[in-house]
Amino acid sequence: MNLEAFLRTVSQQVDRKIDELLKPFEPKVLYEAMLYYLKGGGKRIRPALTAMGAFITGGHPEDAFTVGTAIEFIHNYSLIHDDLPAMDDDDFRRGKPSCHKAFGEDLAILAGDALLTYAFQVLSDASLFKKVSAERLLRVSNLIARKAGIEGMVKGQVMDVRKLGDPEEVARYKTAALIEASLVSGALLGSPTERELELLSKIGEKVGILFQVVDDYLDKEGFYEVFGPEGTKEVAQTFASMALQLIRELNKPEKTKLLEEFVYFLLKRMEEG
Amino acid sequence: MNLEAFLRTVSQQVDRKIDELLKPFEPKVLYEAMLYYLKGGGKRIRPALTAMGAFITGGHPEDAFTVGTAIEFIHNYSLIHDDLPAMDDDDFRRGKPSCHKAFGEDLAILAGDALLTYAFQVLSDASLFKKVSAERLLRVSNLIARKAGIEGMVKGQVMDVRKLGDPEEVARYKTAALIEASLVSGALLGSPTERELELLSKIGEKVGILFQVVDDYLDKEGFYEVFGPEGTKEVAQTFASMALQLIRELNKPEKTKLLEEFVYFLLKRMEEG
Repeated sequence: MNLEAFLRTVSQQVDRKIDELLKPFEPKVLYEAMLYYLKGGGKRIRPALTAMGAFITGGHPEDAFTVGTAIEFIHNYSLIHDDLPAMDDDDFRRGKPSCHKAFGEDLAILAGDALLTYAFQVLSDASLFKKVSAERLLRVSNLIARKAGIEGMVKGQVMDVRKLGDPEEVARYKTAALIEASLVSGALLGSPTERELELLSKIGEKVGILFQVVDDYLDKEGFYEVFGPEGTKEVAQTFASMALQLIRELNKPEKTKLLEEFVYFLLKRMEEG
Repeated sequence: MNLEAFLRTVSQQVDRKIDELLKPFEPKVLYEAMLYYLKGGGKRIRPALTAMGAFITGGHPEDAFTVGTAIEFIHNYSLIHDDLPAMDDDDFRRGKPSCHKAFGEDLAILAGDALLTYAFQVLSDASLFKKVSAERLLRVSNLIARKAGIEGMVKGQVMDVRKLGDPEEVARYKTAALIEASLVSGALLGSPTERELELLSKIGEKVGILFQVVDDYLDKEGFYEVFGPEGTKEVAQTFASMALQLIRELNKPEKTKLLEEFVYFLLKRMEEG
């Protein structure tokens, strides 16, 4: 399967999982606010990396989609809170009114809180998983909490809103941490060696920073403001090279082809943007 | 030990646990915003119930303080988000500027997010526990996520801000759910029977509603506005009686003495208020 077909499959599976995991409930307005961004598309990059991680180490794809969807809940909570007036104050997302514009600020705060909590509800529900031990599931939860919280995303958000740290540092925490957790949590669903986990963790970080560099290039902000167009392309190239080198060190070429393609896919997005 | 001495001990243990679990980190402003309400006192009712639950079923007290402190993180995140301008818009809490007044709205949103995420980081870290299996720890996490999220606290908050449901329904979700989870998660740390868990779950719910009724009586809102002073006292008496009856059904008088005392303590708070 090539990357394009793979990403399409992951999107379909995540859409299915969302409906399966989050069934209609009362109050309806909370359910709708939680689903508002989730069902609005998105590239499902994080679940795709979870699926790739599981593929590399022999995890069950269904378990990878469950974990990937939980991570997608966390990603979407962060988008909702990010858009709030006290944060980025964005009235629109993907051409539609942002969550607080559509549902009110109170509901947007609570829908974000609910999605974050629900992610950990899913990750602690052993009955939702096919082939993961309780010990392993705890480790998955713990990794995701660390990389979504004070060692990762929330830390990066604070650095961003308070202008602390350089673009690479901010990207490492704000964006790359959860992307790293996506890839590594997928790998934890199979039988990875500690060496593989270490490499995948580094790969996830490089890919995550690359992802932010490309985004900044396309939006002409962050890295772009500091390094300019050519400098930003060079930074992207550097992180891509580091990621590709680390992928080769995994020494599982038939298992890591998609991950390699994904690195080129990000670079191409920039070239074409 | 009588209830007063017990509550004092729990407070000390929770203060110690907070320092143990949440060590200074960068950015300092996030660490400080997370600690701001946590270190500002509070009655530590929830950890006390977790400790009582563990005492009833033979769980390790140290494990109960760890789980209770994680629940306290969740309780404090909910206070921070509750106080926000888009929610209750409270400028003060316990006589001090509220979190968003002291740190800004952006930091208050993020400190709440961080506390919620950190609670689940603690609950998924097996190395922090002395005597709990991975399976049991997952069950504790799952219960707390359910009762803090769309089946409990967040659901209740939405009902409250959107004026859905009567005071009892709102109290059941907004307040009682997490109080119930506190007691039951403590019980899960020992060797409870399913029947005991069922009874403790009901007891936690009654005690939680009683707690809200008493609070409303003292603040002259919620139940008080609907039932008036005498009616509210009757409602409190009803929930207290139901809780005491259920406690007797546990049939462990020497183990449930503190829990019984706690019910009388809540009633007395109202009488003296």
